[in-house]
Amino acid sequence: MSKTIKNYGFPTHVINYHHWCKSKFINGVPCMIHNHEDSCRSSPNNALELNSKQRSHSINFVSSDYESLDYDHYESELTVREEKLNGYRTVVASNVIRWLIYFSIAICTAAVGIFIDTAIEYFYDWKYQSIRNCIDVKHSMIECLIIWLLFTVLPTIIGCSVVLFMEPSAAGSGIPFVISYLNGVRIPRMTAVRCLFVKVVSVVCVCIAGLGGGKEGPLIHIGAMVGGSVVEAWWRSFRNSPGQKSIGPLQNDRERRDMMAAGAAAGLSAAFGAPVGGTLMSLEEGTSFWSSSLMWKVFFCAAIAFPTFNAGKNIQFTKSTNDSDSVDSKSIYFFGKFNETAYYFSYSEFPVLILFGIFGGVLGALFVNLNYRLSILRMKYIVSNRKKLLESVFVATFVTTSSLISMVLFENCQPKIKINSSNVIQMNCPAGSYNEISSFWLHTQEESIRSLFHYPIDAISITSLIVFCVIYFILTELTIGLNMSAGLFLPSLLIGAAWGRIVSIIIHYYSPDFIINDPGKYALLGAAAQLGGIVRATISLTVVFIEATGNVQFLLPLMITLFTAKWTGDFFTDGIYEMQIKLSGVPLLVSEPPPLTSDITTEDFMSDTVCAIPHILMVGKLVDILNTTKHNGFPVVASKVCFCRTKAKEHKCYGLLKGFILRSQLNVILEHNLYLTPLHDENYCTKLKLIRNSMYTCEDIKLYQRLNIDEDERSILIDLRPYMNPSPYIVRLETSLTRTFRLFRTLGLRHIVVINNTNEVVGIITRMDLAKFRLWRKATTMGLKEVNVY
Amino acid sequence: MSKTIKNYGFPTHVINYHHWCKSKFINGVPCMIHNHEDSCRSSPNNALELNSKQRSHSINFVSSDYESLDYDHYESELTVREEKLNGYRTVVASNVIRWLIYFSIAICTAAVGIFIDTAIEYFYDWKYQSIRNCIDVKHSMIECLIIWLLFTVLPTIIGCSVVLFMEPSAAGSGIPFVISYLNGVRIPRMTAVRCLFVKVVSVVCVCIAGLGGGKEGPLIHIGAMVGGSVVEAWWRSFRNSPGQKSIGPLQNDRERRDMMAAGAAAGLSAAFGAPVGGTLMSLEEGTSFWSSSLMWKVFFCAAIAFPTFNAGKNIQFTKSTNDSDSVDSKSIYFFGKFNETAYYFSYSEFPVLILFGIFGGVLGALFVNLNYRLSILRMKYIVSNRKKLLESVFVATFVTTSSLISMVLFENCQPKIKINSSNVIQMNCPAGSYNEISSFWLHTQEESIRSLFHYPIDAISITSLIVFCVIYFILTELTIGLNMSAGLFLPSLLIGAAWGRIVSIIIHYYSPDFIINDPGKYALLGAAAQLGGIVRATISLTVVFIEATGNVQFLLPLMITLFTAKWTGDFFTDGIYEMQIKLSGVPLLVSEPPPLTSDITTEDFMSDTVCAIPHILMVGKLVDILNTTKHNGFPVVASKVCFCRTKAKEHKCYGLLKGFILRSQLNVILEHNLYLTPLHDENYCTKLKLIRNSMYTCEDIKLYQRLNIDEDERSILIDLRPYMNPSPYIVRLETSLTRTFRLFRTLGLRHIVVINNTNEVVGIITRMDLAKFRLWRKATTMGLKEVNVY
Repeated sequence: MSKTIKNYGFPTHVINYHHWCKSKFINGVPCMIHNHEDSCRSSPNNALELNSKQRSHSINFVSSDYESLDYDHYESELTVREEKLNGYRTVVASNVIRWLIYFSIAICTAAVGIFIDTAIEYFYDWKYQSIRNCIDVKHSMIECLIIWLLFTVLPTIIGCSVVLFMEPSAAGSGIPFVISYLNGVRIPRMTAVRCLFVKVVSVVCVCIAGLGGGKEGPLIHIGAMVGGSVVEAWWRSFRNSPGQKSIGPLQNDRERRDMMAAGAAAGLSAAFGAPVGGTLMSLEEGTSFWSSSLMWKVFFCAAIAFPTFNAGKNIQFTKSTNDSDSVDSKSIYFFGKFNETAYYFSYSEFPVLILFGIFGGVLGALFVNLNYRLSILRMKYIVSNRKKLLESVFVATFVTTSSLISMVLFENCQPKIKINSSNVIQMNCPAGSYNEISSFWLHTQEESIRSLFHYPIDAISITSLIVFCVIYFILTELTIGLNMSAGLFLPSLLIGAAWGRIVSIIIHYYSPDFIINDPGKYALLGAAAQLGGIVRATISLTVVFIEATGNVQFLLPLMITLFTAKWTGDFFTDGIYEMQIKLSGVPLLVSEPPPLTSDITTEDFMSDTVCAIPHILMVGKLVDILNTTKHNGFPVVASKVCFCRTKAKEHKCYGLLKGFILRSQLNVILEHNLYLTPLHDENYCTKLKLIRNSMYTCEDIKLYQRLNIDEDERSILIDLRPYMNPSPYIVRLETSLTRTFRLFRTLGLRHIVVINNTNEVVGIITRMDLAKFRLWRKATTMGLKEVNVY
Repeated sequence: MSKTIKNYGFPTHVINYHHWCKSKFINGVPCMIHNHEDSCRSSPNNALELNSKQRSHSINFVSSDYESLDYDHYESELTVREEKLNGYRTVVASNVIRWLIYFSIAICTAAVGIFIDTAIEYFYDWKYQSIRNCIDVKHSMIECLIIWLLFTVLPTIIGCSVVLFMEPSAAGSGIPFVISYLNGVRIPRMTAVRCLFVKVVSVVCVCIAGLGGGKEGPLIHIGAMVGGSVVEAWWRSFRNSPGQKSIGPLQNDRERRDMMAAGAAAGLSAAFGAPVGGTLMSLEEGTSFWSSSLMWKVFFCAAIAFPTFNAGKNIQFTKSTNDSDSVDSKSIYFFGKFNETAYYFSYSEFPVLILFGIFGGVLGALFVNLNYRLSILRMKYIVSNRKKLLESVFVATFVTTSSLISMVLFENCQPKIKINSSNVIQMNCPAGSYNEISSFWLHTQEESIRSLFHYPIDAISITSLIVFCVIYFILTELTIGLNMSAGLFLPSLLIGAAWGRIVSIIIHYYSPDFIINDPGKYALLGAAAQLGGIVRATISLTVVFIEATGNVQFLLPLMITLFTAKWTGDFFTDGIYEMQIKLSGVPLLVSEPPPLTSDITTEDFMSDTVCAIPHILMVGKLVDILNTTKHNGFPVVASKVCFCRTKAKEHKCYGLLKGFILRSQLNVILEHNLYLTPLHDENYCTKLKLIRNSMYTCEDIKLYQRLNIDEDERSILIDLRPYMNPSPYIVRLETSLTRTFRLFRTLGLRHIVVINNTNEVVGIITRMDLAKFRLWRKATTMGLKEVNVY
C-alpha cells in the first residue's frame, strides 16, 4: 500500500495531501463518509426499480427512471495528456473519419429504407392478388373474409409479438424517443441492434396488415438508431488498427447525438424524398442543440440518403420501365407530380386556406385529445402482454371487417378508364368498372394518397370519401398506441386529403368554375392542415410538402395553412409527440426556462443529500459507497462535513469542491484495478480507453452491478484526482432557477454542483430537479406548476 | 448620511454589513480601492481611442474596439420584484406583443424593399431611355459617353458621400456586421435610423450606377436594422400607456438579437422571393444562438415579408398586366420560371456537376483572395475620405468606359425576335436586330440574370459572354470594398451564370444532342457554384435557388454542386464574410472551442487586473473608479485584497464574490441619484425602467462620459446589492479553455468572473481573452495560434 502512495505520478506538492490522507484514513477514521452516512445511502433516484413503481396515469409527472446523457465533455488529467500526445494530425483524421461515418449513416439508413419499402410492396401485392382472386374470380365472400383476415391478423400478431416479447421499446413511431434523446435524456436500448431489427419487422407487418400506421415515422427512428450505432461499428472494425486513435474522440454522447440527428434526417429524407425537409424536421422537431456545423452534417446525410434510396428503388423499377437513368422520373416525387398549370392560387383564396388551417387544427387537437384518453385507458386496463396482443388482433379484425362491409354496403361503381391504377376490385360491378371504395383498402398508403391527390373529381364519390375518412380516423386513433411500430404521418395525410377532397367536391358542386375539375389542390391542403394540426410543425412540413409535390407554387398556401393549423391546435392541446413524451414521464427540458422564476433560488429546489467522496480514500470505502447508493455522479471534495447558514436555512456542507466523477468511471477504476498502477505515460492510454468505453456503452444493469473486492485490497488508497473532472460547472446557492436552468439546458449537462459562499459543496442539481417545474398553458392563460417525480 | 443607512430596505441580517461598512469606510479608509488602485486605472480595453490606434493590416488580430452584447438576462432584486408583481398575465401580453412586433418587422422590411426596388427600376428606366436616345436616335457616341458617365458617376458620388460623411458603418453589404451582431458583438450604430436611411440611398445609387454590387445583401442588413429598431419604436409609441409594462421585458439584447435574425431573413425573403431560403440563410450564416421557437419566429417573419413584397410589386405590375390577383404569376420567381420538361438530369451528368462545383470553388477562392489583397491595399493607401470618393468615381468611370468600348469593339448583332426584352440598343446593327452585348450593360441585374438563364443558346455569343464575364469579375472585385452599400449575391450569380453558359455552349458545340438548345440549366449551376464558392453556404443557397427557380428538380444537382464548391473553396481560403470579419478584427466566437486546448487553464489567459467594487461604498469612490477606468463590468465583492497561491503562480485576490454590476447600471445609479432613496415598492419600477433603458440604448459616448458629483454627496454610502446581479456565471482557476469557451459562447456572456478555491475573485474573462485563440487551417493541416489584440 505504501508502494501505491510512493508511485503516484504527481509532482511534489501532492505530497501534502498524502500526509493528510494518512492521518485521516489509514488510521481507519474515514471522517467524511462516516459523518454523512445517511446521505450516501439509498437515494430516491433508483433507476433499477422500474417496474415496481406506482405509475401516475396522467401527464403531470416526471419519471425518475430516466438519466441524462453526458453532453459535457469528459475532461481529466487523462484527456489532457491524450490531447498533448495526439496533436492536430489526429484532429484532422477525426474530422475525415467523422464525414465518412456520416456518409455510412446515410447509406445504411437508405438501405434499410429500401428493404422496408420492397418488403411492403412485395407482400402487399401478394395480399391484393389473393383477395382479388377470391372476390373477382371465385366470388366467395366468406373465403375472401378469411383470406383477408389471415393477411391482416397474422402480420399483426407477428409485428406485435416481436415488440412485446423481444423489444418493448420499439413500439410506436419512436419519434418521441428521438426527440427525448436529442434533448439529452438517456433512452435505454436506443441504439441496440435488436431494437433496430424488431422495428423493421414490426413496421413491415403494420403496413402489410393495412393498419392505420405508416412507415415514415419509424423510418426516422430507424435512421436515428443507425446513426447511433454506426460509430460503434466503425470502432469495432478498427479495434486494433492505428486508426482507432482517431475514432476515440468521436466516442461520446455529444457526437452520438449529432449522428442520431443526422440519421433521423436521413430517414425522413429517404421516406419522403425530401432532403431539405428532413434536415429541417430534424432541426425543428428534434434537435435541442444546434450549430451551423451540425446543420451541414445533417444536410449532408440527408442529401446522400435521398438519391441512394431513389437509386435503389429505381433498380426495382427498371423491371418495367426504362427511365432509371433519369434522376427526375415521376417516381421521385412522393406525392406524385402536381401539374403546375392547373394550380394557380389567388389572393382571394386566402380565407379558404385559413379555414382549412383552423379545421385541421381543431381536428388535430381532437385526435390528440382522444389519443391521450385512449392511452390512459390502455395504461390502466391493458397491462399484460396477452391483453396487448389481443388488442392488436381486435384492431386488425376491425380494419378487415369494416373494409369489407364498407365495400359491400357502399357499392359504387366507377369506370376503370378514369384512373390508371390496376389495383382495384370489380366485385359486383359491370366489366370495365370497379368497386370504388376498394381502391382505398387495397392500395398501399402511398398509392391511396396519390389517388386522393390526382384522380379526377368525379372518380371518387363523396360517400366513399366520408366513409373512408371516418373509418380511417378511428383506425388510426386505435393503431397509434398499439405495441407496434406505426407512424402517423401517412394516416394523417390520408385523413386530411380525404376531407380536403370532400370540401373541394362541395365547392365544385356549388360553383363549378372555382375548381376546374381538379380537387388535388384542396386535398393537398387538407392533408397539410391535418398533419400540421397533429404534429405541429410548420417550416419543415412546408418544405417536405414542396419537395414531395415538386411544386414550389404551393409554398405560400401551405405556409398559411400550416401556421393556422399549428396555432389553432396549440390553443387546445399539445402536439401528439409532446403529449406522448409527457405521458411517458420523460424529463424533457424545453429550450427556455419557465418565465417568472428568478425568485426561486437553487437553494429551494436542489437536492441536498449529496454523496461526496474525498479525493483520496480507501478502496473498501469506495466500494461500499457504490454498493449502497444509486447516485450517478459524485462531487470529489477535500475536507470534512460541516454546517453553514444562509438567509433561509441551515445547510450541510460536504467539503471543499475538488472535482466531479461519474459512477461509470469509478466502476472502471475498481473493476480493472486501475488504482494499483500509478498514472504514467505508458498506461494512461489504456486507462482512458477503458473509461471512455464505460461511459459510452453504459447499460443500466452493468452500471449498478454489485462490486466485489478482496478483503486485503480494501485498505489500499485510491487517488481520484487523475480520473476526476477538475472543474465541473458550478452554481452558487443564490442562483435563480432561470439561470441554473439556462446553464444546465444550454450546455446539456447531467449534474451541476451547488456550492456555498466558501466553495463548499452543499447540493447537487440533476435533470429531475429542473424538469419538475413545468409551464402550463390553457387558451390564453399560463402558469407554473411543480409536477411530481415518481 | 446616517439617514441613508437607516432607510435601506433590507432585512435585519444586513445590519452586520453596515457595521462593517461603517468601521471600514466612514472612517475614511476605503481599504479595497486603495490597495489595488493600480488595477482600477486605465485598462488596455479602451473603447474610446478608436482612431488613434495602430491598425494591423492583416487578418491576424482582434480589435479591442468591440464590446460584447449582454445576452445574459439582467437579474437583480429589482427584476425579481418586478416578476412577482407582473405575473403571468404580463407574460402572455408580452408574447402577443412579440408576435405583433415580428409582424411589423416583416411589413416594414418588405416596404423598404419595395421602395428600393421601385426606385431602382424607375431610375434605371430613365437611364436606359436617355442612353438609347442618344445612341439610336442621335447617333452621337460622345454625347452618349457623357450622359452615361453622368448616370454612373453622379449616383456613385451621392451613394459614396452619404456613406462617408453621414454613416461610415453603412458601407459594404453589411452581412458581416449582421453575423457579428448575432454572434454577440456590439456593432456601434447597428440600429440607428440614420444608418438605415444611408444604406437605402447608397444601395439605390449603386444599382443605378450599374456597379458590380447588388441590392440583396444590403437588404439583409436593412432587414436586420429594421428588426433591431422596431421594438424601440413600439416602446416609444406606448411610452405612457399601461401596455408598456409588457414591452419592458422585450427590451434586451437577447430579444433584439432574435428580432434582427428575423429581420435579416425577411430581407432575403423579400429580395429573392424565398421565405424558406431566407430562414435557412439566417440560420446557416447568421444565427449563433438557435432554438426552435426562434426558428418559428424567423420563418413567420420571412413568410409575411414574401407575399407583402410581392403584393407591393404586383400593384406596380397591374399598370401593364392584369394578373395581379394570381399569387403565382411568373413574376413570383426571381430567376424566372424554368420550364420543367426541358430539365432532366441523369445520373451520368453527376461528374459534370462536380466539375462545376470545383471550378466555382476555385474561382470563388480566387475572388476572396484577390479581394483580401485589395482590402489590405485600400487600408494602407486609401485612407482619407477624398481618396475614397475618388476611388469610387474611378470605378464608376471604369464601368462606363469598358461597357461602351465593349459595345463598340465586339459589335455582334442579334435579331430581336429571339428574345422578348425591349431594353436593348440597336447601335450600328440593322433594323430589327440589336447590339448583343448592350443587353448586359443596360439591363438591371435581375433582367441580366434572367436573360442568361432563359435566352436560347444562340441568342448570346460566346465572345460576348467571355467579355462580360471578365469585365464583371473585375468590376465586382473593385466594387466590393468601396464605401458604398453593395452586396455580392447578384454579381456572383451573373459571373457564374456567364461562365456556366459558356460551358454549355462549348458542350453544345461538341455534342449538340446533349443540351437541346437550352443553356439555362448549366447557367444556373454555374451561378450556384460561383456564389457557393464565394459565400460558402450550402443548404440555404440550395433552397433559395429552388424557390427562385420554382423548380424542385434542381434539388439534387444543386446540392452536389454547392457542396463541392464549398469544400473546394474551403480548401483554399475562408469565405468572403469570414475574411471580411477577420479583416475588421471583430472578435467572433465560433460555435466550438478550438480543439486540444484543455491543457490551457483559465489561469493562463484571464486578465488578472480586475477592478472589484465593495458592495457598500462611498459615492465619491465609485465616481472616481468610473472616471478612471474603462472597464464595462465590475465584480462586487465583500472583503479586502489578499494574495493566494496556486500551482503555477501567485494571484492577487480581490475579495469574496458577491455579485456583478455593469458600468451602464452604475452610471444610471449615479446620474439619477438612485442611491438617495432606498428601494421600496413604489420606486423600484422607475429604477428598473431607467436601468433597462441605459442597458438597451447604451451608446459608447454616453457610457464613458465623465460623471460629476457634488462634494457633499461624495461621502454618502451606496449599497449596490439591490442593483447587482447576485449570481454571475463563474469559473474556477483550474477550468480549461475548452470549458470556459463553451460556457461563454453557448450562453452568450459578456464577462465571466474567475474565482479561486475559496470563492475569491482573482480574474475576469471577456470576449477578447477567448477570441484571441484562433484555429488556422491550411489545406489538410491545422493548428492553434494566439493572435494579437489591438
